[in-house]
Amino acid sequence: MPEHRDLALQYARAHREEFLDSLKAFVSIPSVSTDPEHNRDMAVAANWVADRLRDLGMESIQIFPTERHPVVYGEWLGAPGRPTALIYGHYDVQPVDPLDLWKTPPFEPTVVGENIYGRGASDMKGQDVAVFKAIESIVRTGSLPVNVKWMLEGEEEIGSPSLPKFISEHKELLSCDFTLNADSGIAAMDIPSITYGLRGLAYFELRVYGPASDLHSGMYGGSVHNPAIVLAELIAGMHDAEGHITLPGYYDRVRPLTEQERAEFARLPLTDQSVKEITGVSVPYGEAGFTTAERIGGRPTLDVNGMLSGFTGTGGKTVLPAVAMAKISMRLVPDQEPEDVNRQLRQYLEERAPKTVRWELDELAGGAASISDLDNPWVVAFGKALETVWGKEPLFKREGGSVPVVGQMQRLLGVESVLAGFGLPDDNLHAPNEKQHLPTWYRGIDAFIHFFFNL
Amino acid sequence: MPEHRDLALQYARAHREEFLDSLKAFVSIPSVSTDPEHNRDMAVAANWVADRLRDLGMESIQIFPTERHPVVYGEWLGAPGRPTALIYGHYDVQPVDPLDLWKTPPFEPTVVGENIYGRGASDMKGQDVAVFKAIESIVRTGSLPVNVKWMLEGEEEIGSPSLPKFISEHKELLSCDFTLNADSGIAAMDIPSITYGLRGLAYFELRVYGPASDLHSGMYGGSVHNPAIVLAELIAGMHDAEGHITLPGYYDRVRPLTEQERAEFARLPLTDQSVKEITGVSVPYGEAGFTTAERIGGRPTLDVNGMLSGFTGTGGKTVLPAVAMAKISMRLVPDQEPEDVNRQLRQYLEERAPKTVRWELDELAGGAASISDLDNPWVVAFGKALETVWGKEPLFKREGGSVPVVGQMQRLLGVESVLAGFGLPDDNLHAPNEKQHLPTWYRGIDAFIHFFFNL
Repeated sequence: MPEHRDLALQYARAHREEFLDSLKAFVSIPSVSTDPEHNRDMAVAANWVADRLRDLGMESIQIFPTERHPVVYGEWLGAPGRPTALIYGHYDVQPVDPLDLWKTPPFEPTVVGENIYGRGASDMKGQDVAVFKAIESIVRTGSLPVNVKWMLEGEEEIGSPSLPKFISEHKELLSCDFTLNADSGIAAMDIPSITYGLRGLAYFELRVYGPASDLHSGMYGGSVHNPAIVLAELIAGMHDAEGHITLPGYYDRVRPLTEQERAEFARLPLTDQSVKEITGVSVPYGEAGFTTAERIGGRPTLDVNGMLSGFTGTGGKTVLPAVAMAKISMRLVPDQEPEDVNRQLRQYLEERAPKTVRWELDELAGGAASISDLDNPWVVAFGKALETVWGKEPLFKREGGSVPVVGQMQRLLGVESVLAGFGLPDDNLHAPNEKQHLPTWYRGIDAFIHFFFNL
Repeated sequence: MPEHRDLALQYARAHREEFLDSLKAFVSIPSVSTDPEHNRDMAVAANWVADRLRDLGMESIQIFPTERHPVVYGEWLGAPGRPTALIYGHYDVQPVDPLDLWKTPPFEPTVVGENIYGRGASDMKGQDVAVFKAIESIVRTGSLPVNVKWMLEGEEEIGSPSLPKFISEHKELLSCDFTLNADSGIAAMDIPSITYGLRGLAYFELRVYGPASDLHSGMYGGSVHNPAIVLAELIAGMHDAEGHITLPGYYDRVRPLTEQERAEFARLPLTDQSVKEITGVSVPYGEAGFTTAERIGGRPTLDVNGMLSGFTGTGGKTVLPAVAMAKISMRLVPDQEPEDVNRQLRQYLEERAPKTVRWELDELAGGAASISDLDNPWVVAFGKALETVWGKEPLFKREGGSVPVVGQMQRLLGVESVLAGFGLPDDNLHAPNEKQHLPTWYRGIDAFIHFFFNL
């Protein structure tokens, strides 16, 4: 008689079509958390997730309201004496603009070749559904070998503002041995990997105010400081000629990379060449003294995510704008804290902004970086699962993205996270034409099945 | 028996209500030349203007098509032996965005106190109607003492791209002794003035391209040059710490201000204080070594008119943008040529733009600065008209704005322009809440009546 593990793997192989349909249904819901116009879609997505937990035989399913978007909870605790995994996920997605650069409609998931295109296909509806389907494969062919709890939030793409409070207020409910967080990816389709480090995030909106209203650039140009130019000067001053960030004290708490870490970075398939191929730039760029892999995984950055001032339509308008705005965000590494960066940016602006303008700074999101312990049994179990499916030992990597919940779990629940997702570096996360590579996705479902049996 | 001049002035005084209604009707037409969606409104406005010329008894009225918006022509040549004025005007207006800053709808002209608000109320529908109504007052009470031709274009706010060709091809039709150009204003409501100099304009759109599409700032931030930051650095480098423009050779052809000109600038009511009051800035700013009036009227500038990159909606999106755009324009003084500035800007970009990005530069509009002769009989006649109506000698001023047609008339038709309009410095030209001060407008109509009789 075949083992339960094998039955589950067979079930997964036999139901790939239905698994894909389920992913399509989820991606079709335009659950953009940052945009209040999608609030109804967010509720639809939360209910969709709760229904899936119900399908899996989960109990105590609840949709907890928060100040913005609800947290979906469910559990199955029918394996006494066995470990309890808290499965984290998020059902919200990034906005889709610029919409005109999408080759297929972002909320009409479309399979082209080996990929499925759509907003959230990879980040992270694809990963959510992969875990759902791994569990489905197990529970349809037997009994779950572990206990599971689920916490699926709707605010990850806006910095998880409600989550720390939710976790603090539900420590008992969420108590577990470790968390499984699939909001992640592997290094390449043929290179299985486990993420052990994530960068933090500090995200700001800076507004520079000049004249009380837009002026005619002929009548006043030359006599009033142009806030778009002031903003440009402030942004320009944030990096030196070597790509170092100039905010006062910015590097004070940056943990230096060890020789071992630099060796691990060197093994990653993340090179100038791969960055060129994926991003289409002809000359990569970054902080002097570090490799591309280190710049992404191990060093803090400062990016302008958006910039707006004056007239931006077709043709010309000779206006001297009243205001200029930039969205500026930093990716943080251990041991930088978002609060430090907020203070450093403010100090920079106080020292550098001319008296001819007024400025305002809002912090829109923030979360510290995190680094996990590589020796814990959950990571080992996941590494073994990857090795079984891919037939090779996985890489350990620090990633450039931010999953603040990992740090919160560590701090608030005292547990480690297994960062186990199956996105790829060229998935166009947060960009037009987001996709999920389907062969990798199906392998991922198999890996999750192995993982739950390995525990 | 009262003189014709007095009858015309009486007519004007008796018909102020109707004059205002006519202005309201004109301002109600949303003739935004830069926006193809308003092409129909442009045609409506051209026809409205032609109808007004018909009402005034003009002959040979024609609407000449051009590549974009038509030129309206009309004439009355029934005063042989008397001078011929070519009356220039434009029936197009600037775009209205940001719409939410308008206190009244831009195309529903609204009188509040002594002002009428609406897009084009001052620039220059108000001035067009003032000339129409001065001529109406004269022709309803007798016969015009001069010959007039009219040329009203629909492309002034987009840099008059079709006008040089139109003038070149219709030199005979447009032959005249001088042009009257009311696209101008006076220094203050109690300070009549004549504009004898105008700045030129060179207007560009600069686009900086980074990655092929927007990237996730966590996955690639630090390894790819951010085009918004590169654009900011390029803009920041265009001025030095003293407010001088750094484009190579930018000041080479700038005509220095004479002592006499500086003395005339010093008489203008355009001071740090007035700039503060009108613009709402607390600290004016400009090129070191020059007064506010000189910075506006006598020195070239470089402004950013618009800037756009990445995500600019509400909230945060952690995107590393693929492209960043700025609208950059320079106000030019004699003897700078737009072609020189185009070359200088290109040279600057070639020298400064890093190899990590690609850039494109488009010139959207260009026109040289102009300076008129103060002793010509037409300017003298207008000065006398102002003195009669205001009871004081007018100031002579160089203005910061650009009316490229003035230079074209000089070059192509060999005639001088009288720049005679009745806008005020706080009219919010090209900005929300554009207005025309009505008492000044009625005085302007009287001044135009005097002017035609003074000739």
